[in-house]
Amino acid sequence: MRGLTKDRPFQKGERTMRFDLLLKNVRPLEKDVVDILVVDGSIRKVGKSTSPPSADMTVIEGENRILIPGFVDAHSHLDKTLWGLPWHRNQAGPRLIDKIENERRVRRELNLSAEKQATNQIRQAIRMGTTHIRTHVDVDTEIGLKNLEGIVAAREKFKDLITLQIVAFPQSGLLIRPGTIELLDEAIKAGAELIGGIDPSTIDRDPVRHIDTVFDMAARHGIGVDIHIHEPSTLGAFSIELVAERTKALGLQGKVNISHAFCLGMIDDTYLSQLIDLLLENRISIMTHAPMPRPFFPPIKRLREAGVALCSGSDGIRDTWAPYGNADMLERAMFLSWRSGFNKDEDLELALDITTFGGAKVLGANGYGLEVGCHADFVLLQGETRAEAIVTRAPRKYVVKNGRIVARDGECLI
Amino acid sequence: MRGLTKDRPFQKGERTMRFDLLLKNVRPLEKDVVDILVVDGSIRKVGKSTSPPSADMTVIEGENRILIPGFVDAHSHLDKTLWGLPWHRNQAGPRLIDKIENERRVRRELNLSAEKQATNQIRQAIRMGTTHIRTHVDVDTEIGLKNLEGIVAAREKFKDLITLQIVAFPQSGLLIRPGTIELLDEAIKAGAELIGGIDPSTIDRDPVRHIDTVFDMAARHGIGVDIHIHEPSTLGAFSIELVAERTKALGLQGKVNISHAFCLGMIDDTYLSQLIDLLLENRISIMTHAPMPRPFFPPIKRLREAGVALCSGSDGIRDTWAPYGNADMLERAMFLSWRSGFNKDEDLELALDITTFGGAKVLGANGYGLEVGCHADFVLLQGETRAEAIVTRAPRKYVVKNGRIVARDGECLI
Repeated sequence: MRGLTKDRPFQKGERTMRFDLLLKNVRPLEKDVVDILVVDGSIRKVGKSTSPPSADMTVIEGENRILIPGFVDAHSHLDKTLWGLPWHRNQAGPRLIDKIENERRVRRELNLSAEKQATNQIRQAIRMGTTHIRTHVDVDTEIGLKNLEGIVAAREKFKDLITLQIVAFPQSGLLIRPGTIELLDEAIKAGAELIGGIDPSTIDRDPVRHIDTVFDMAARHGIGVDIHIHEPSTLGAFSIELVAERTKALGLQGKVNISHAFCLGMIDDTYLSQLIDLLLENRISIMTHAPMPRPFFPPIKRLREAGVALCSGSDGIRDTWAPYGNADMLERAMFLSWRSGFNKDEDLELALDITTFGGAKVLGANGYGLEVGCHADFVLLQGETRAEAIVTRAPRKYVVKNGRIVARDGECLI
Repeated sequence: MRGLTKDRPFQKGERTMRFDLLLKNVRPLEKDVVDILVVDGSIRKVGKSTSPPSADMTVIEGENRILIPGFVDAHSHLDKTLWGLPWHRNQAGPRLIDKIENERRVRRELNLSAEKQATNQIRQAIRMGTTHIRTHVDVDTEIGLKNLEGIVAAREKFKDLITLQIVAFPQSGLLIRPGTIELLDEAIKAGAELIGGIDPSTIDRDPVRHIDTVFDMAARHGIGVDIHIHEPSTLGAFSIELVAERTKALGLQGKVNISHAFCLGMIDDTYLSQLIDLLLENRISIMTHAPMPRPFFPPIKRLREAGVALCSGSDGIRDTWAPYGNADMLERAMFLSWRSGFNKDEDLELALDITTFGGAKVLGANGYGLEVGCHADFVLLQGETRAEAIVTRAPRKYVVKNGRIVARDGECLI
C-alpha cells in the first residue's frame, strides 16, 4: 500500500491526501460480487470487472468478502477511557457518588489527558472498522473546558480519518452546579456541535428546568440535542414526554436524540405506543447499546417496525466506572441482537443496520453508504453472511475512510 | 514440543501418554511468580527456580503469565451444535414448537452426527482452555440413543484430553412422550452419568410426576441429577422446592444441580432467602450462564455469599435454536460479570472462580487445582491481572490437560 506503514504517525498535510482505490470482488451488504472504484475519496463506480484507470492505483483483492459502510459509534465517551494505560484496579464503592468521586480521584492521580485518551480509543475504534463517532464530553465546574478542548484537538488531529461529533455533556448535573450552564455555552462556542443533558429528575431534581435549559441552549445556538435518560419506567417516560414537547415547540424535529431510554423497555404496551407516536411525530431518535447489567432496554424491533430512528454506541469503555468494552461496533451489533433475543438472520441484519446506516442517519452523515457518489468509508468483513460476521465478530480485512486505508488485518495504520 | 504437530490426529495408545513439563515463571491465580513441575500428568512441585530433572523434559517459559486451572463448562449441549459446518441460515418461527420442529428438520436434512459435531465443539473448547465439560444429550422417542451413543464415542475418543460428563436429557419431555423413561434407563446403562429433566410444569404439565420420575431414576441407578428449570418466578421456585424435597428424601445431597433457575432472579427477597436455605440444606448447586435475552437470572453474588455452589456453562452454541456462542468460558466469565453489574476486580475474579473451581466442585472433579498432587490441567493466560484477562478475553498461550499440551496460541493440537 503506497506510503502506508504500520503505526507511522501521519505527516502534516498528508491526512487530507486521498488514495484512489480499486476494490475487486466484494459483496456490498452480502449482495452479488462487484468491483468498486474509489476516486478522490468517493465511490466513483460500482460494477463488474472494473479495470484500474491508472497503473499506480492501489488494488485490493476482496476475495468475495462482505463490504459494509463504516461503523457509526453514536454514543461514546472518549474523554473517560483508560484504554492503552496499565490495568486500572477498580475499587470504587457501590453508590453513584462513590463512582463519580472515584473518577475524579483517578483522573487527578493519573493526570489524564483527554486528547491522549481519545487518541487511544479512536485508534482502537478504527481498527474495528468505525468511521464515525459521536462522543459526549464532560463539562463541569471542576474540569471546565479542559476535556472539551482535548477532544476538539483530537477531532482536528483525526480530521478526514474519522468523523467526530462532539456533545457538550453535563455529567455531574446542570442546575445543581452553578456555573455549568455558562461553561456549556462556552463549550459550544469552543466547538461542541450538540448540547447534552442527563436524568433531569434524578440528577438535577427538576425535570422541567433541566430540559428547558438544555433546549433553550439548543435553540439559541441552533444546534441539536442528545440527552441521556437512564431514569426508569414512568419517570423516564415523563422525561421523554417533556423532551418531545420542547422538540415540537422549538421546531427541533429531526435534531434530537435520546440516549439509553431504558424506560421504553419498562412500561406497558399502551403507554409505549403513545411514546412511539410522540417520537415519530417529532422525529426523535433513540440510542441503545443493549446495556449488559440492565434487565430492560428499548425494544429494538418494535421501535424499528414503527419507524423510530435507532442508533447504537459503545458508551464508556474501560474507564473508572466499568472495565468492559472494546469500541467494536460489530461486537455491539452482536450484543444488540443477542440481548434482544434475535436468532433469525434477518433480525441480526437489523442490528448491523442500526450500527451503520442507523447511526449515520442520527449523526446526519451526508454521503454515507455504498452507492456511487458516497464517501468511500467502508469495512471489508470476513464471513459467508452478515449474520455469521456478527456472531463471529469477523476479522476486518480493510477499513477505509475517505478513500484512505486506515486499518488492515486489525492494525491501525494511522 | 515433542511429537506435537498442528491438527495431527492422535494415534492409538498415544492419548494416554503423559508429557513431563516444567513451567517456568508463571503466576498461579495472579500470585507470586513460581515454577511448576509436572510429572506423569500431575503437579509434582510448585516453587522457585526449579530445574528440569531430565534433559529431554519439555520446558515452557511462562513469561510471568497468569496460570489458572482449566475451565469447566458445566452446561453444554455437544449433540446440538452446528459448529464447523457452513453457516446455517436461521429461519425458525417464533414459537417453541417451531424451534423444536426446525431442529428436527435441520438435523435430518444435514444428516448430523452427534460424535462429529461434539468433536468440532470439543476442539474449539480445548482451544479456549476448557478441560472439563458436562454435556446434556437429547434422548427422545425419535432420536432414541443415537446422540447418546455419539457422545459416548466422543468421550472415549477424547479420554485424557478432556473430561466429559454426560447427562441423559429428555429435551422433548418425559411424561408426554411415552417410551422416553425406558430410553433414559437405557441411556444410563449405555454410559450417561447423570439424569436430566426439564421444566416439570411447562413442558410435562405435571411437576410432581416429572420430578418424581427423574429422582426415582437417580435413586435406582445411584447417580446424580442435573435438571433444567427455565420456569419463571414462583412457578420455577415451586419446582425448586419439589427438587429440594426429593433430594432430601432420597439422600441425594451434593448430587443435584439446577440449571438456569431464572426464577431465583425474579422472586422477592424473603422467598429467595427461603430457597437459599433449601439449596444449602440439600447441597444443591446452581448453573447460570447469564443468559443474554433474559432480563433476570440468578443473583450470583448473593448466592455465593450465602454459600450456594455455583457453576457456569456455554449452553447451546451455534445451533438451530440460536447462532451465538463460541465455547469460550473466559468470555463466559466476562458475561457473568458484566450482566451481574460487577465492576470491581474482586467481583470479576468471583466470575472466573465460578467458571473454574465452581464448576469443578459441581462436577465432582477430583484433583482439580494448582496445588501439588493435582492433575496438570491448566491454562496460561496473558494479562496483568485476572480481571484484565477476563475483559480482554486474553489469548491462551498454552492449554494443558493431564500434563499434555493440548492447545497452543489458540491452535488445538489434538
